[in-house]
Amino acid sequence: MSSTTPLRSLNINNINPHVKEAKYAVRGELAVRSEEYRAQLAKGPSNLPFDKIISANIGNPQQLDQKPITFFRQVLSLLENPLLLESEDVLVKHLGYKSDVIERAKWLLKTVGSVGAYSASAGAPGIKESVAKFIEARDGHSADPKDIYLSAGASSGVNTLLHIICASPQTGVLVPIPQYPLYTASLSVLNAKCVPYYLDEAKNWGTDLEAIKGAYKHAVSDGTDVRAIVIINPGNPTGASLSADDVKAVIEFAAQEKLVIMADEVYQTNVFKGKFHSFKGVLREMQKADAEKYKYVELASLHSVSKGMVGECGHRGGYFELCGFDLEVQDQIYKFVSISLCAPVIGQCLVEMMVNPPKEGQPSYELYKQEYDGIFAGLQKRATALYEAFKDMEGVKCGEPQGSMYLFPTITLPPKAIEAAKKEDRSPDEFYTFRLLDATGVCVVAGSGFGQKEGELHFRTTFLAPGTEWVGQISKFHKEFMEEFR
Amino acid sequence: MSSTTPLRSLNINNINPHVKEAKYAVRGELAVRSEEYRAQLAKGPSNLPFDKIISANIGNPQQLDQKPITFFRQVLSLLENPLLLESEDVLVKHLGYKSDVIERAKWLLKTVGSVGAYSASAGAPGIKESVAKFIEARDGHSADPKDIYLSAGASSGVNTLLHIICASPQTGVLVPIPQYPLYTASLSVLNAKCVPYYLDEAKNWGTDLEAIKGAYKHAVSDGTDVRAIVIINPGNPTGASLSADDVKAVIEFAAQEKLVIMADEVYQTNVFKGKFHSFKGVLREMQKADAEKYKYVELASLHSVSKGMVGECGHRGGYFELCGFDLEVQDQIYKFVSISLCAPVIGQCLVEMMVNPPKEGQPSYELYKQEYDGIFAGLQKRATALYEAFKDMEGVKCGEPQGSMYLFPTITLPPKAIEAAKKEDRSPDEFYTFRLLDATGVCVVAGSGFGQKEGELHFRTTFLAPGTEWVGQISKFHKEFMEEFR
Repeated sequence: MSSTTPLRSLNINNINPHVKEAKYAVRGELAVRSEEYRAQLAKGPSNLPFDKIISANIGNPQQLDQKPITFFRQVLSLLENPLLLESEDVLVKHLGYKSDVIERAKWLLKTVGSVGAYSASAGAPGIKESVAKFIEARDGHSADPKDIYLSAGASSGVNTLLHIICASPQTGVLVPIPQYPLYTASLSVLNAKCVPYYLDEAKNWGTDLEAIKGAYKHAVSDGTDVRAIVIINPGNPTGASLSADDVKAVIEFAAQEKLVIMADEVYQTNVFKGKFHSFKGVLREMQKADAEKYKYVELASLHSVSKGMVGECGHRGGYFELCGFDLEVQDQIYKFVSISLCAPVIGQCLVEMMVNPPKEGQPSYELYKQEYDGIFAGLQKRATALYEAFKDMEGVKCGEPQGSMYLFPTITLPPKAIEAAKKEDRSPDEFYTFRLLDATGVCVVAGSGFGQKEGELHFRTTFLAPGTEWVGQISKFHKEFMEEFR
Repeated sequence: MSSTTPLRSLNINNINPHVKEAKYAVRGELAVRSEEYRAQLAKGPSNLPFDKIISANIGNPQQLDQKPITFFRQVLSLLENPLLLESEDVLVKHLGYKSDVIERAKWLLKTVGSVGAYSASAGAPGIKESVAKFIEARDGHSADPKDIYLSAGASSGVNTLLHIICASPQTGVLVPIPQYPLYTASLSVLNAKCVPYYLDEAKNWGTDLEAIKGAYKHAVSDGTDVRAIVIINPGNPTGASLSADDVKAVIEFAAQEKLVIMADEVYQTNVFKGKFHSFKGVLREMQKADAEKYKYVELASLHSVSKGMVGECGHRGGYFELCGFDLEVQDQIYKFVSISLCAPVIGQCLVEMMVNPPKEGQPSYELYKQEYDGIFAGLQKRATALYEAFKDMEGVKCGEPQGSMYLFPTITLPPKAIEAAKKEDRSPDEFYTFRLLDATGVCVVAGSGFGQKEGELHFRTTFLAPGTEWVGQISKFHKEFMEEFR
């Protein structure tokens, strides 16, 4: 409690209680401490037992090893300084810009005018057309630019959709547990109900239809007006990649109970095992088989430039596509997004290039493919190295890497560690992650930040950091931790 | 009412009622119609009585005539493609990049890492330091980087602050009328109360302390928990530029009633008459005179790269600075902004350059100054031309241009026009602006979109569009309109 409470308009006891309730561990106390260590290390010699911070807490590829794709950045440099286009020969002869870079920049400039101007509220029309073509090619089914909304990353799209859906404190949204905490945090802020459904760790963190049904029934019997279901595929934090049958089962259930499906598909290119099945593609197939039954299924699918081999988080670009939404509701979505004017226009241009990269035969294709494949292979290699290390650690269980940028191992800690955590007023997994950071400089996120079954413990780590040395540090720490509390 | 209502999860009658209530005319029906006309014109010959659309409805400088500042865009091109820095000689010899462009790019890259990486939640620390230095130089009083939050334009900052302040449906925020509708729209979405106070048109739309006090008392007696006061200086839509005494009076009142001051100062460089007085600077002077009395005044001042001679709306960059806020409240603000991860990093870099442009004696200074002064002079010239035209129009009254990017004339319409508007179920000023668009292609915003006193009529127009031909079109339309309804 602040001692100055009565002196100001705002204090911790009279601000918006729903903001207070929101939890967002990914950038919480542990992350803040890691940044303090980083600042300490930057100042010169310190007493810390490590010499660098490994931020394995957030999926921030370019903070770590991932290089941006050259084609994307060459085009963006021309969009930022169109005067360069007056010296095409210099670009080509001295700077290695290929003709398709120059053409794309000209086309994007024609489409958006200046990247310093607001675009239309839902995004530049020409870019929405490219997104629609990408979806058509991906799914083999048509897409309409008017149903596409460009956003400042997927987070902003989620914020828009939940603002529309959450009509009262009784509104409920089914959210997978564990989940990326954007969903629970946004529902807290909106004073709506999170209806958790547990993913099935035994089935590599797949969806469990019985768990979904159970959670839904329970919520409805409690008076919750369940309106939507969130699916994160490939999973965050779990890394799970859903089968077509799992996707179908969710759509079937949503159709039956009239739920909006929010498909968070930002990791759609980060799939190591099997194949990505988009909700849109599967829905259209189901509609082909039985048009009447699935006609009114409402699907919002989200994508982003932040993840995948693009990894351009800092540019805040993304989109969502709506299927089956009522037009009057779409008008309200349009109005809502217009209040924040438009998504960053440079981010919109990156979305365009992500969905429409250089094609085979085009001058920039070879380098693009080499960079793209290199990033993919690097991620897979590191995921495997991390997975192998986890297999060898006492009390640690981890499924084989399937997709996204994360591993989410289960940890079993000795009773003494659990007692020690209690003394520090932390959950055991938080206690573990603080100890890990303090000992090694490696920052991961405790499973409690994403939700987990009572009595289970996990942590989420990205596999973005270069090298394998830090993996060895985790193994060493873990061994010592287990010894200490045995 | 949609015919498919019972078939879906969401329909117009069961979505979030607070989103439905929100009004945002700046990009509403009239703006949508203007975009339809634009698309029609782009397709080739049409039956429309004009051949282009003049978007005088939004302050979007680079959509119209304003060119970006060369220094800013040269640096941004290097941030987007840092590989260009490997060919410094080409940049210098063939592309005219000066050494300070290259130095700034290197410094910014060192500060943010990659512009494709997430920054810290409240912005890159090095950029916040530059902002603090700018505020110190502007006001002659110290500023602390830890109190600065980089945001996606000022709109996103307003959204953050109102989320914290609005604790219940009884929370009230004093908002000037007329106002930029972001405030009323955000308060609607947050289900809080807008407490309108009228600006004084007779005093060139200045603040009227008696009006503020009256609105406050009235709200309090109605049970509203008034927590904050919004000031837009220079004004939007009014263009008013407040005197130091007006600013002082507002601070005095806020101190007395313990209200957070939200100072929207995005037009701080668009001042044609007198001088800009920042709330921060005036507050610090008052604190110097009487530290005890003003110690706990809570001020949030907002700025943006979207307006002024920068005019980079599409980049979505801005910041807000907090003074006097409780630290526990600041922790909640940090958590709230971290949920949306970070402001666009390229926009953050533009903020840095806006607050730290080339200085006298530096290689890029001369061109920077020439461009900056040229834009300023152009805006002033067009504002004056528009003002002169309004003076000659029957039933139109308009104050001399003072600041921002807008004029907000009062119009008096004949009774027959008011009747005709009623038949179309529009307010008379909306009716007028629709007629104006249909006849000339000029899109302005009706005064009712910003709020106005009962029985008064206005419209807001930017003075960004090039040339003066469109001003002549407005005059001609107005004359014909008055004839038609006389």
